[in-house]
Amino acid sequence: MPNLYDRFLEFLSPAEILEATPALLNDQRRRFVSEPDIILQPHSIENVQEIMRFCFEHRIPVTPQGGNTGLCGAAVASGGVLLNLSKINRIREINLADNSITVEAGVILQNVQKAAAEAGRLFPLSLASEGSCEIGGNIACNAGGLNVLRYGSMRDLVLGLEVVLPNGELVSHLQPLHKNTTGYDLRHLFIGSEGTLGIITAATLKLFARPQTTATAWVGLDDIESAVELLTAVQGHFAERLTSFELISRYALALSSEFSRLKQPTDANWHVLLELTDSVPDAALDEKLAEFLYQNGQENSIIAQSEQERLDLWTLRENISASQRKLGTSIKHDIAVPIAQVATFVRQCAPALETRFPGIQIVCFGHLGDGSLHYNTFLPDVLSNEAYRYEDAVNTIVYEHILACHGTIAAEHGIGTIKKHWLPSVRTPSEIALMRAIKAQLDPHDIMNPGKLLP
Amino acid sequence: MPNLYDRFLEFLSPAEILEATPALLNDQRRRFVSEPDIILQPHSIENVQEIMRFCFEHRIPVTPQGGNTGLCGAAVASGGVLLNLSKINRIREINLADNSITVEAGVILQNVQKAAAEAGRLFPLSLASEGSCEIGGNIACNAGGLNVLRYGSMRDLVLGLEVVLPNGELVSHLQPLHKNTTGYDLRHLFIGSEGTLGIITAATLKLFARPQTTATAWVGLDDIESAVELLTAVQGHFAERLTSFELISRYALALSSEFSRLKQPTDANWHVLLELTDSVPDAALDEKLAEFLYQNGQENSIIAQSEQERLDLWTLRENISASQRKLGTSIKHDIAVPIAQVATFVRQCAPALETRFPGIQIVCFGHLGDGSLHYNTFLPDVLSNEAYRYEDAVNTIVYEHILACHGTIAAEHGIGTIKKHWLPSVRTPSEIALMRAIKAQLDPHDIMNPGKLLP
Repeated sequence: MPNLYDRFLEFLSPAEILEATPALLNDQRRRFVSEPDIILQPHSIENVQEIMRFCFEHRIPVTPQGGNTGLCGAAVASGGVLLNLSKINRIREINLADNSITVEAGVILQNVQKAAAEAGRLFPLSLASEGSCEIGGNIACNAGGLNVLRYGSMRDLVLGLEVVLPNGELVSHLQPLHKNTTGYDLRHLFIGSEGTLGIITAATLKLFARPQTTATAWVGLDDIESAVELLTAVQGHFAERLTSFELISRYALALSSEFSRLKQPTDANWHVLLELTDSVPDAALDEKLAEFLYQNGQENSIIAQSEQERLDLWTLRENISASQRKLGTSIKHDIAVPIAQVATFVRQCAPALETRFPGIQIVCFGHLGDGSLHYNTFLPDVLSNEAYRYEDAVNTIVYEHILACHGTIAAEHGIGTIKKHWLPSVRTPSEIALMRAIKAQLDPHDIMNPGKLLP
Repeated sequence: MPNLYDRFLEFLSPAEILEATPALLNDQRRRFVSEPDIILQPHSIENVQEIMRFCFEHRIPVTPQGGNTGLCGAAVASGGVLLNLSKINRIREINLADNSITVEAGVILQNVQKAAAEAGRLFPLSLASEGSCEIGGNIACNAGGLNVLRYGSMRDLVLGLEVVLPNGELVSHLQPLHKNTTGYDLRHLFIGSEGTLGIITAATLKLFARPQTTATAWVGLDDIESAVELLTAVQGHFAERLTSFELISRYALALSSEFSRLKQPTDANWHVLLELTDSVPDAALDEKLAEFLYQNGQENSIIAQSEQERLDLWTLRENISASQRKLGTSIKHDIAVPIAQVATFVRQCAPALETRFPGIQIVCFGHLGDGSLHYNTFLPDVLSNEAYRYEDAVNTIVYEHILACHGTIAAEHGIGTIKKHWLPSVRTPSEIALMRAIKAQLDPHDIMNPGKLLP
C-alpha cells in the first residue's frame, strides 16, 4: 500500500505520523532494528481505534511500542505500522478510597511513581528502566523488578484494563473492583500478552502506603542452603515487612568491590542483602532485626547504621552489572526456579557449563526472595569476540538445568522474538493450541504484533 | 447409555461409584436438585483422567462437585456424570522456602488452614462454609470471604494449578514460581471458570506469616462518606495491618443486638468494625490505634480491651445474618462497587426499591474495605410468602444501581446457573464471544458443566 501516509492523514494529524529515528527503530539491546512502513503516534484513544479499524480492514500488521525498553525483541516491527503509544499519557484519576490510580498506557513508570507519591501513596513497581519505560509496556510484558517479593509483579498490581481490540473495538473495565467474578478472567490474558492480542490503552493500578522506616542488613553465609533457611526464618518472623532479599556470590562481590567505596562487608562464599520496611514508623526496627539475626546465629553480619551505610551496601549490589563488563560479552539469562531449588540449580549448572566451555566465568546474583536469578556467563577470551554464536549452546545448558529444577526460562522479560522457539519447553501442545485459538478469535487476520511470543 | 454403571466399573472400583443421597444432590440453597445419570467419586488423578477420556469419547456431560456449598447453582448436574472430587484430597507438600502449600482439589478449606497453622504459617482464605467447602471449588469460583482486604481473593492466592482437560489430558504447573511470564496466562482462565473448562485436581497456594497481635475498634459514624474517609486514613497509616473494615447500618445493628450480649457499642447511623493485625508482636498496637482514632476526631468509638470484648464486637457483626430471619424470606445480592461509590449506591438504591415495593426492609452491611456489600431485602408481609416470584424484579432494580455505580453483580459467589442471563450486562458481546471460543477450544463437545456461566 504505497499511499499509506496519505491514507492515515485522512484521520490523523500530521503530528501523529513520525519520521523514523534511531530511538524509535533500534531496540534496547541493539540486536534488532524495526523496519516499519510507517510510524504512528496517535494523540487520542479514538485515533488508536481508527488506526486499528483501518489496519484490520486492510490486513496491515501493527506493532505496539511503549518506551522501547523491552529486552526480548517484542516491539520490533517488520513492515506495517509501528504504533507508538507515548502520547496516550494522561494520568486520569487517583482514587484514595480505592487506593488506586488510573493511567494511560504511555505514562512513564517513574511518573506513575511520582503521582502516587504526591498523593501520599506508593506505586511499587520499580525497575532499572523506570525513567523511560511506559506502563502499557510494563503490563504487556508483566514486568517484575525489585519489589516483587513484597508487592508482586505487574500482574498483581492491575485492578482494571482498557484495551483496543484488533478490530478497533474499545473494551473498558477500569473500575477498581476488589471482588469481581463474572466469567473467564480476560484481564490476565492481556497482561503478559506482549502486544499480540490488542492495544492496552489504560489501566487502573493498586496503590499502597508509603514505607516510613527501613532496616538493612548484610549477611555472610557459607552456602545458598543457609541463605534459603535465613529467608524462611525472616519471612516467618517479619512477614510482609521483608522487601528485599538479594543473593550475591563471592565472585560477584569481588568484581563489584573494585567500583565501590565499601569493599567487603562480610567475608563469605555467599552474601545476602536484606531490607525490611514498615509503613508505620518504628524506631526500633533496626534493633529488632539485629536481635533476630543474633537469635538466628547470624553473627557474620552488619546492619546499616546510617542512610549512607545503607546506600553503600546497595551500591555494592547495584555495581555488579557495570563491574562485570571487563569480562567481555555477557550471555544473560532471565530465569527463576522455586526458591527451594535455587541451590540445586546453582550447584549443578556451573559444572555442566565448565565442562562444555572450559574457563567460562559465571556471575551469579539475584532476587533470592523471588527465586529469580541473574545468571550471566562470560566465555573465555578465545570465544568471547563471537559470544553470540555460542548463545544457543549456553542457553541450552542453562535451560536444561532450569527445567530440571521446575523453573522458568522467562521470569520477567517475556518471550518476544528471542525465546519463542523455547515456549514449547514450558507449555504443552494443548496449551499452545489454546493460546493460538485465543489469538485467532481476537485477531483473525493475525495483524497484532505478528511473529511474536507464539512459535 | 443404559449400561453406564458397567462401563465405568471397567476401570473404577465399586467404591468410586456412589449411591445418590440428598447431601450429594441438593444444592446449598435448596433451590436446585441434581439429576445425574451416575455419581462418580474417583480415588486417583489417573481415574479422573480415565473418566474424562471416556466421557469425551462418548459425549457425556460432566458436572464437577466439591463440598457442594456453592450459592449460584454451578455444581448442579442435569444428566450425565456428577463428578465428586472429595476423595482427591491429599496435602501433597508444604514448602516453607517458597511459603507455599500444594493440596489436591478435595481438601476441605479448614484442613488447608490447619495444615498451614501446623507449619507455623497462615492460609488466609476464610469463609462461612470453610468447614465443608473444598479448595477445588474455592478456586473454580474464585472465592472471596473475610480476608480479601489484606490477602486478596482466591485468585491472588494461587501460585500454580494442575488441571485435567475435558479430553483427559493432565496439565500440571504446580511449581511455586514467583516470577514467570511464558505466554498467555492460562492459570487465571481456570480460576473462576466454575468447572466449565476442565477439572482442577490440585493447586499450589501462597502461605503467609501468622498474625501475632490484634487490635479491634468499633466506630460510630454519621454517614457512609465518613466511613470511607476513615478507611482511606487507616490504609494510609496502617497499610497492610488493616485486616477487616466492616460496615453495619443502624438497622442491622438493632436486629443483631437482640441476639447479642453487647447491645450498642456506639449510637450512630452507621458503624464500622475495624481490625488491625501484625505478624510481628506489638504490645502497643492498641494504643497506636487509639491514638490514631483520637487524632482523626473519632471520639464516638471504643477499642476492645480484652479478647472477650473483641469477640463480643465480632458477635454483633456475625449475628446479623441470623437475626434478620424474623423478617421473612430474604432476596440477597452478592455485589460490589468501587469503595468510592458505596455511599452513592446505598443512597440511591433504597428509595428506588421503596417506590416499587412500599414497606420493603433493607439490611445493609458488608466488607466496606473491599467495596462488597450484603444487601438483603425483605418484601412486606403481603408479598413475603412468595418472595422468589419477585426476585427478578428486586434484582433488576439493585443491579441497575450497581451498574450505574460501575459495580459488579457477582462479587464472590460466581455466575453459575442463576446469573448467567445477567452476564451480558457486565461483559461485551466480543468478550462473551472470546469466552465461547476458549470454551470451544478446550471442550469442543461441550461436556464440561454445560449450561453454566455462559448465557
